[in-house]
Amino acid sequence: MKIAILPGDGIGPEITAQAVQVLNALGESFEMEQAEVGGAGYAAHGHPLPPATLALAKSADAVLFGAVGDYKYDTLERALRPEQAILGLRKELGLFANLRPAILYPELAGASTLKPEVVSGLDILIIRELTGDIYFGKPRGVRECPDGPFKGEREGFDTMRYAESEIRRIAHVAFQAARKRDKRVTSVDKANVLETFQFWRDIVTDVHKEYADVELEHMYVDNAAMQLVRAPKKFDVIVTGNMFGDILSDCAAMLTGSIGMLPSASLDANNKGLYEPSHGSAPDIAGKGIANPLATILSAAMMLRYSLGKAEQADRIETAVKQVLAQGLRTPDIYEAGTTKVGTEEMGNAVVNALR
Amino acid sequence: MKIAILPGDGIGPEITAQAVQVLNALGESFEMEQAEVGGAGYAAHGHPLPPATLALAKSADAVLFGAVGDYKYDTLERALRPEQAILGLRKELGLFANLRPAILYPELAGASTLKPEVVSGLDILIIRELTGDIYFGKPRGVRECPDGPFKGEREGFDTMRYAESEIRRIAHVAFQAARKRDKRVTSVDKANVLETFQFWRDIVTDVHKEYADVELEHMYVDNAAMQLVRAPKKFDVIVTGNMFGDILSDCAAMLTGSIGMLPSASLDANNKGLYEPSHGSAPDIAGKGIANPLATILSAAMMLRYSLGKAEQADRIETAVKQVLAQGLRTPDIYEAGTTKVGTEEMGNAVVNALR
Ligand SMILES: CC(C)[C@H](C(=O)O)[C@@H](O)C(=O)O
Ligand SMILES: CC(C)[C@H](C(=O)O)[C@@H](O)C(=O)O
Repeated sequence: MKIAILPGDGIGPEITAQAVQVLNALGESFEMEQAEVGGAGYAAHGHPLPPATLALAKSADAVLFGAVGDYKYDTLERALRPEQAILGLRKELGLFANLRPAILYPELAGASTLKPEVVSGLDILIIRELTGDIYFGKPRGVRECPDGPFKGEREGFDTMRYAESEIRRIAHVAFQAARKRDKRVTSVDKANVLETFQFWRDIVTDVHKEYADVELEHMYVDNAAMQLVRAPKKFDVIVTGNMFGDILSDCAAMLTGSIGMLPSASLDANNKGLYEPSHGSAPDIAGKGIANPLATILSAAMMLRYSLGKAEQADRIETAVKQVLAQGLRTPDIYEAGTTKVGTEEMGNAVVNALR
Repeated sequence: MKIAILPGDGIGPEITAQAVQVLNALGESFEMEQAEVGGAGYAAHGHPLPPATLALAKSADAVLFGAVGDYKYDTLERALRPEQAILGLRKELGLFANLRPAILYPELAGASTLKPEVVSGLDILIIRELTGDIYFGKPRGVRECPDGPFKGEREGFDTMRYAESEIRRIAHVAFQAARKRDKRVTSVDKANVLETFQFWRDIVTDVHKEYADVELEHMYVDNAAMQLVRAPKKFDVIVTGNMFGDILSDCAAMLTGSIGMLPSASLDANNKGLYEPSHGSAPDIAGKGIANPLATILSAAMMLRYSLGKAEQADRIETAVKQVLAQGLRTPDIYEAGTTKVGTEEMGNAVVNALR
């Protein structure tokens, strides 16, 4: 089985190295091949998603991705900026289903800005559609406003859109995921204003007919943002579009106060996937050896489970991570008085030791 | 000066009645005229925004709005549903600037789901553009997908758009509001993905040249949702588009835990405005006399300040509200042990007494 390793920028290389170390400690034989992506791709080959990197990702069974972005690439024209690599990989690999768990480990309840009783034991799964919506819809651009009160002026514009089968397939992912959990799906839309999301609501409702054992609730996106703050534990699975999912998944991640712990998976129709931490490239702490590698290590566990058919090894990694937390080891982002502060490598080593 | 009173549905009539009582207690002579809107408009005249209601709103110097929506109207076709009244009023009256303060009164810090140190003293102002963006952009609808991998399928679609002058005028509102506060504006966009919001960022940056005394920061919407949860007090003024503003303003309101306290103003180019509580029509508690009228009373204060040129009277109302909170009076939504639980009318009466 071949894994493409794309460390990227900022803390990407450091955290990815620890995840690779953990994978190597499992006693399986994976073929791993590394390539540059993001700013590193641009620096080495003049493009954030160099052709060789894309080819490697396509040929691999799964992609382990670090993070992309650094201050020094901020002034590049948009088509060359690091985040284009992520958008390109999603689109080229057909990674339409983004799974982002927002889990609060009991040991880390204090790290949240929310009161412990509101978030302790939090375990929600956000499923974000990842290849449709206003992210890729056409036409888009800056043009002369064609009509209305601003006719003749310049205007920026984009197209939001979802085709029926795009909604169907992500709805299936959500209902099937809910079956393995608490059997409740909240579909988040803005059906009261947007045609796209009235259509979304209609299709999700239709797909739901095949899942009588799963409860479906529809919620407007503004209300969902409120309920995430008010009573996040009420949710089980949330399914939504690309744009709303971008906002709500980050909001949900931050509820835990420990975004350095949260993995993510982006899957295609055949369970091939790209796995990356939910946090970013944190260029301000890059190279200091203090980044938290656990989100990337847990992303590797998701990879084993969803793409490589190795659920047992995934369990082993997740158990090992719980163990190091129980031992009191903490990188600075999750450090609290009374625990032991460790660096990136020490944390990775501790997970490897716990695996044995 | 003429004020249109549009109580609407659910708790709307109860809370509006208290705001009217407070306005009457000021000793000014306002002409107030009432009309049906929302479900009540549909019930009485077959449309959520009956022509007579719209005409009244247009002829008035300001509109005091309760809330709209009730279960019994949920099954109406979309064009007849209560929320169309809000969208129609915004568009017809040109109310492009929505001002939503998120303020946490020290006495109510306990009501928040966030830790007191994270939110106590919170005072941010969200300025949401209200007549543009994907809310009104055309074309929109359900059609046969014209091209791409889903060609021939049904798809729902909408158009996001902002013309240059729409961005300029809301940016001016934000910078001018910041001048009266802590002189910091955060413009929230998604310039890394959307053409509309790269354009937005460019124009806001340009308008900023006229406000050298105000600090401008750009932030992606996903990050803004995270920072609102992580460290909301870092914000002063947030300015953003209609869709992002819908989500972020509700999220910010919920941070306070006391959305029953939060007013809002929606202004046109001449400071004529519509004033309404940030919360909804709460049909589950309608008619029980337990709804919190303070958000509506504070909306009336905003009306006096922004549309009627009576800043002193606005101050009087705001001081009176602080006084009743200090007296320990609480409607059930903000009740805590050790305070005195009161109903809608008692709360309104208490504000009137405090005014004297
Ligand atoms: C970098 C950006 C294009 C991306 C997105 O908006 O999808 C990011 O925010 C994410 O959520 O992975
Ligand atoms: C009712 C709805 C159309 C409206 C909106 O989305 O603007 C509401 O959520 C609001 O924020 O006032």
